Amino acid sequence: MARIVQKFGGTSVGDLDRIKEVARRIKATRDEGHEVVVVVSARSGVTNELLAKAAAINPQPHEREMDMLLAVGEQETIALMAMALHALGVPATSRTGGQAGILTSPSHTRARIMRIDPAKLEDRLKAGEVVIVAGFQGIDLEGQITTLGRGGSDLSAVALAAALHADLCQIFTDVEGVYTADPRIVPEARLIPEISYDEMLELASLGSKVMQARSVELAKKYGVTFEVRSSFTQNPGTIVKEEVVSMEDVVVRGAAADKDQAKIIVSNILDKPGSAARVFQALAKAEVLVDMIVQNVGRNGIANLTFTVPRGDARRAEAAVAALLDDLGGGHVTVFESIAKLSVVGVGMRNHSGVAATVFTALAEAGVNIQMISTSEIKISLIIDLDQADRATRAVHAAFKLGEQAPAAVGG
Amino acid sequence: MARIVQKFGGTSVGDLDRIKEVARRIKATRDEGHEVVVVVSARSGVTNELLAKAAAINPQPHEREMDMLLAVGEQETIALMAMALHALGVPATSRTGGQAGILTSPSHTRARIMRIDPAKLEDRLKAGEVVIVAGFQGIDLEGQITTLGRGGSDLSAVALAAALHADLCQIFTDVEGVYTADPRIVPEARLIPEISYDEMLELASLGSKVMQARSVELAKKYGVTFEVRSSFTQNPGTIVKEEVVSMEDVVVRGAAADKDQAKIIVSNILDKPGSAARVFQALAKAEVLVDMIVQNVGRNGIANLTFTVPRGDARRAEAAVAALLDDLGGGHVTVFESIAKLSVVGVGMRNHSGVAATVFTALAEAGVNIQMISTSEIKISLIIDLDQADRATRAVHAAFKLGEQAPAAVGG
Repeated sequence: MARIVQKFGGTSVGDLDRIKEVARRIKATRDEGHEVVVVVSARSGVTNELLAKAAAINPQPHEREMDMLLAVGEQETIALMAMALHALGVPATSRTGGQAGILTSPSHTRARIMRIDPAKLEDRLKAGEVVIVAGFQGIDLEGQITTLGRGGSDLSAVALAAALHADLCQIFTDVEGVYTADPRIVPEARLIPEISYDEMLELASLGSKVMQARSVELAKKYGVTFEVRSSFTQNPGTIVKEEVVSMEDVVVRGAAADKDQAKIIVSNILDKPGSAARVFQALAKAEVLVDMIVQNVGRNGIANLTFTVPRGDARRAEAAVAALLDDLGGGHVTVFESIAKLSVVGVGMRNHSGVAATVFTALAEAGVNIQMISTSEIKISLIIDLDQADRATRAVHAAFKLGEQAPAAVGG
Repeated sequence: MARIVQKFGGTSVGDLDRIKEVARRIKATRDEGHEVVVVVSARSGVTNELLAKAAAINPQPHEREMDMLLAVGEQETIALMAMALHALGVPATSRTGGQAGILTSPSHTRARIMRIDPAKLEDRLKAGEVVIVAGFQGIDLEGQITTLGRGGSDLSAVALAAALHADLCQIFTDVEGVYTADPRIVPEARLIPEISYDEMLELASLGSKVMQARSVELAKKYGVTFEVRSSFTQNPGTIVKEEVVSMEDVVVRGAAADKDQAKIIVSNILDKPGSAARVFQALAKAEVLVDMIVQNVGRNGIANLTFTVPRGDARRAEAAVAALLDDLGGGHVTVFESIAKLSVVGVGMRNHSGVAATVFTALAEAGVNIQMISTSEIKISLIIDLDQADRATRAVHAAFKLGEQAPAAVGG
């Protein structure tokens, strides 16, 4: 007997038929002898309806009241899911986030989970019941209803799995799992059966937006093994867990292109201490998220600073930097919006040389020009032309044979 | 400065425009310098939608999960109402039933209010905020969400008014108040400006279904003065409070016909001890609510037992009694469905003779035959033919001059 947390997102419980279908799946898990805790989101569409009502009444609603309003969505789902399980003869009981003991910070609409009191749920599990918990929500120390922000239901599931010492946390969603690349771009992309937290984090922050990074980080912190899989099929998905020995053989796990970036070049500024610091202070003040940074200094003491930002922040970044240029000894700021960030991710990379060489060779053969390079222990990121992004992804995917069942170690 | 509890029912907050309109009304009360606690129901239609969803998933949903589901309705309204008040610049905060400290019995779907911890709301009122409480719901000692059953939001409002020692409790609804008779039947019917709890109780249990009796009983128990008035107009409504001296002058407050009754005659049964008891035990077991009872015993030791029941229970009552007839020495059971119960209500009645005489004279002149009579301290009820009910109501209304501004004491 294992203890399993199963999380079902908004599309998975989108209508009454879907709720019944999910109930059958939960029953099947329980019939195998497992203890089951279920975390559900609001039915897809419900949250948007509530947001529209709020907007019609008050264009700037207080965040506390937004939480009071939005929490309604999951509460409806947990009650209906419990009824669906009862209809199948499965003992089940629903719990709001607060009733499940999910204590959060008081930051409405973006609360953080502080702790979970598992005693409230342990009793029900011991009594043989399936416990259905409203995701995305909790209460603060004063008993106020809070919500956790984007990806909140995943976070609820992972946190509950940690607090309840679950053997497995299953994140049911509308994709089959994590792929070696986006299958819409790379037809031979393959589902990755197992992946480490760090690799998942790098891929999650890129094109494969399966989960928010905060849920993966929480799972890593507490060592929660979780599986991302489809609620629409019976196929196994991707298991995400701590790096294991066998992973060492794998150099590259996947490749993904982030097409939502812009590149900004600040050229011809004086290379004196503090110039870069002032640029990034100004960007922080303008609430621009800077990703990659490269600085080149020429022999004449004139520096070029290049960095990338989310495309939506590009013009705000440009304005913030432009206001500084006189102080920085003149110079120019230029925005390039037609770029993409291609990333190659793999835990094995840190122990192997030659990955970069393979990437560069593959891109050269595909005629893709590399504008910027940044490396971390488990990732190489490259800025390339936006219209070459798909071709580059396919080239790298092929070079590392990611479409094959057991990817070969390359270049070691 | 007074402290006022204002309750708005489902039609009063039926859509977003109505919510904004109610918010303006609340603001007006607060602008007069009053402390305001608002109790709201689910928007009209929402509860039925939730019930339909539950029925589609499970024809026999557990009551605990029904409460979890239905509580969503008021929670949506309180958040939207708070937002509407904020849009008008009014400080306001929403509270679920549980957050408002409404502690109930654990009887799901029909919980009783055990106590209210007013400290939770006093702080917000002292801070100058309008507090918006979800009606119809509370929590039990274990923190489970409960609902109060029919008329629950009125009950929440009256209970909060008692716990907060409010000066007035205003029940806003879709009628103007309590009338001397149903205005659709008696055109000259007049709004009653003030009425006692007992009179309201008698009228509430009749045709004028303005409020459930349990809310009036609670108000009486705690001496909560409340007003029933329309949320669609600015007109004053009916104040309901303890009997006051000036009320002594008024004999009859109103007349109403309950057309949802049936009469059952059990004839020719042996008049021996326990016969009636056995009949009513059988009816209780069949969950039939018996209203009026009359027994006649003839000289030959043969008795007739006549009683009234809600029309929907008539056939069940007939079957329950028929099964007993052999044991009761034979006899017959006959159901008369085309009857109505006409009631004349007034606190003053208990100190005056002649009310019955006025009623009988008026009905005789109108050609209405009286089949049964039952009297209480403040009410005379008569069973008459269903098709004479409206004429009888008009006749009694006219006889007591109820349509005039200050009804005269009659027959004293």
